[in-house]
Amino acid sequence: MGRYTLAVLPGDGIGPEVVAEAVKVLAAVGKKFGHTFDLRYAPFGGAAIDSSGSPFPPETEDTCMNADAVLFGAVGGPKWDTLDPVIRPEKGLLALRKAAGAFANLRPAKLFPELADACYLRPDIVAKGIDIMVVRELIGDVYFGEPSGIEVRDGERVGFSNMIYGEYEIRRVARVAFETAMKRNKKLCSVDKANVLAVSRLWREVVTEVSREYPEVELSYMYVDNAAMQLVRNPAAFDVIVTGNLFGDILSDEAAAITGSIGMLPSASVGGPDMPGLYEPVHGSAPDIAGQDLANPVATILSAAMLLRYSLSLPAEADAVEAAVAAVLAEGYRTGDIYRDGMRKVGCSEMGQLIADRV
Amino acid sequence: MGRYTLAVLPGDGIGPEVVAEAVKVLAAVGKKFGHTFDLRYAPFGGAAIDSSGSPFPPETEDTCMNADAVLFGAVGGPKWDTLDPVIRPEKGLLALRKAAGAFANLRPAKLFPELADACYLRPDIVAKGIDIMVVRELIGDVYFGEPSGIEVRDGERVGFSNMIYGEYEIRRVARVAFETAMKRNKKLCSVDKANVLAVSRLWREVVTEVSREYPEVELSYMYVDNAAMQLVRNPAAFDVIVTGNLFGDILSDEAAAITGSIGMLPSASVGGPDMPGLYEPVHGSAPDIAGQDLANPVATILSAAMLLRYSLSLPAEADAVEAAVAAVLAEGYRTGDIYRDGMRKVGCSEMGQLIADRV
Ligand SMILES: CC(C)[C@H](C(=O)O)[C@@H](O)C(=O)O
Ligand SMILES: CC(C)[C@H](C(=O)O)[C@@H](O)C(=O)O
Repeated sequence: MGRYTLAVLPGDGIGPEVVAEAVKVLAAVGKKFGHTFDLRYAPFGGAAIDSSGSPFPPETEDTCMNADAVLFGAVGGPKWDTLDPVIRPEKGLLALRKAAGAFANLRPAKLFPELADACYLRPDIVAKGIDIMVVRELIGDVYFGEPSGIEVRDGERVGFSNMIYGEYEIRRVARVAFETAMKRNKKLCSVDKANVLAVSRLWREVVTEVSREYPEVELSYMYVDNAAMQLVRNPAAFDVIVTGNLFGDILSDEAAAITGSIGMLPSASVGGPDMPGLYEPVHGSAPDIAGQDLANPVATILSAAMLLRYSLSLPAEADAVEAAVAAVLAEGYRTGDIYRDGMRKVGCSEMGQLIADRV
Repeated sequence: MGRYTLAVLPGDGIGPEVVAEAVKVLAAVGKKFGHTFDLRYAPFGGAAIDSSGSPFPPETEDTCMNADAVLFGAVGGPKWDTLDPVIRPEKGLLALRKAAGAFANLRPAKLFPELADACYLRPDIVAKGIDIMVVRELIGDVYFGEPSGIEVRDGERVGFSNMIYGEYEIRRVARVAFETAMKRNKKLCSVDKANVLAVSRLWREVVTEVSREYPEVELSYMYVDNAAMQLVRNPAAFDVIVTGNLFGDILSDEAAAITGSIGMLPSASVGGPDMPGLYEPVHGSAPDIAGQDLANPVATILSAAMLLRYSLSLPAEADAVEAAVAAVLAEGYRTGDIYRDGMRKVGCSEMGQLIADRV
């Protein structure tokens, strides 16, 4: 029976409504297991730009840094798309990740057996199953590399962004990936572009060094272009993938997309000790369906389950949430994005309630 | 009735065998239309490293620069994977592209109706068709950006590669993309990561500027992670995609993979006037099946068709080759990679002969 402080950042678009459902589910967990979740709401993203002029205001940062973990929805939308890049909603997300030292982003791409017909791939490929964990480095690479900018050189504009990794950054995320592989099928694929990029050659070198600490893990290497292919051709061949921030951004979205269940996929971003973990759905803010009770809250609810498991070390509680989600799916409830004939269509808030009831 | 000089670079792995079949087809074209193709073979890639210590020796460069166009197979293989990166087969390819000023890489990802069942996507998505032309910038970006290297800073190794574009580089490839769109369905999607990268913000700015010259083309923008998703979810929505070298490497391979016909897909890399165009299959050197008469020569044969069309301005001849490929597929001939029950299985050389016979 614990007491936990959670920063809750609903954000923009469908963020507030999916977060509300995850909060319902956390309340049910609290009741069942006797925990108290002290929720501290804070403005973030476009909503924070509107209220304070910054996507990640200092008070929000304080709230996050003093919490045991951060749960958030999504950021961004057309309203803020024309803003100066320095204060766009996405900058808030990057600043939050950096502030929390969240260097390892865990993005499961998993096919829920009940949703196999939503998968975008050919049925014979789907039949082999998809269960991939992408471990993406999250606070380095070209996302934060300096120098970066646009300047005039010899009379023409030149844009540049430095793709850069230090060995320490590579080593720590590689360790998370090897540890993750140890808990799964002990297969790790490191993705880079070492046949062309110097930064990738260092990546490969350091991952190889770290692999000596994990002799049980079968390590392979793949070029990023080939990985983009193999995810489509034979996703069942992957267990854990480890890669840099940019390649991870692309490949984790591709992996999520093929499952056809993007509204179902959670993510965790974790860092050093004494830093809060960040938990968010893989999907975006979907401004087109915001406020209409159409969103699928499962990705955020499963993100809350990851929060319970990784940041609060409450595996039984996490299992209870995941089992509740599975039960509701087995009973045939579906939000619009995963609806098929013969199923029971529900809205965002009913879906959240059904899951909370079954915790 | 013309006389044309072609540099032929068979390269490594299955390169020599697929190139041999394209040469058969070119011979048939020459006979039918009364052209003479003066073929100048030159060592390239791993084969050139073995014979001369360099993947792109000066004599090969001379041969290419003095040709009307370059046809090549594939480079690379495990034999050369452990070499110093500076002399690896891939470096030869990059040097060739650079020497030829081949800044625009045209990579069609097209579903052949006869091969719809080879497509990796769900049948209802396949039914909408896939016919995408990826226009990838080919001689800039992080592939060639300086500074780049691995050095020790503050006692740790740091790897860096500069993602950099000048406006001139963006403008010229954007023009090729808009021109390409004008000849197709007039829809162009520019892919970048402008919500994070400065280099992408310049990319978007310049593409927007160029778009004013092409008011008939419907221009849209997409972030690269979303593009990786949408290619899987709704490939029929794309007509022409324009993007940088690195994103183009990844997305064109993903687009090729979903068609399921990677052994069928050609590519053209074209540059300024008075420079030879480069034509190559999208697939790699496939060392595992090399020398066994198992490879699919169609991608290289269709690359030769692109060569006829773009570098030699011989559209009727290109049409004849493409029609011959379609005829052979319609008759049910298939190499192993695209074989299905009920079809007629043939090897690489028989496939080439069948197509040559039908030109
Ligand atoms: C919104 C954007 C900055 C972000 C990223 O690129 O990391 C998003 O795509 C993600 O993957 O979480
Ligand atoms: C072999 C490699 C250097 C090359 C590239 O990355 O450009 C290849 O992947 C391609 O796409 O032609």
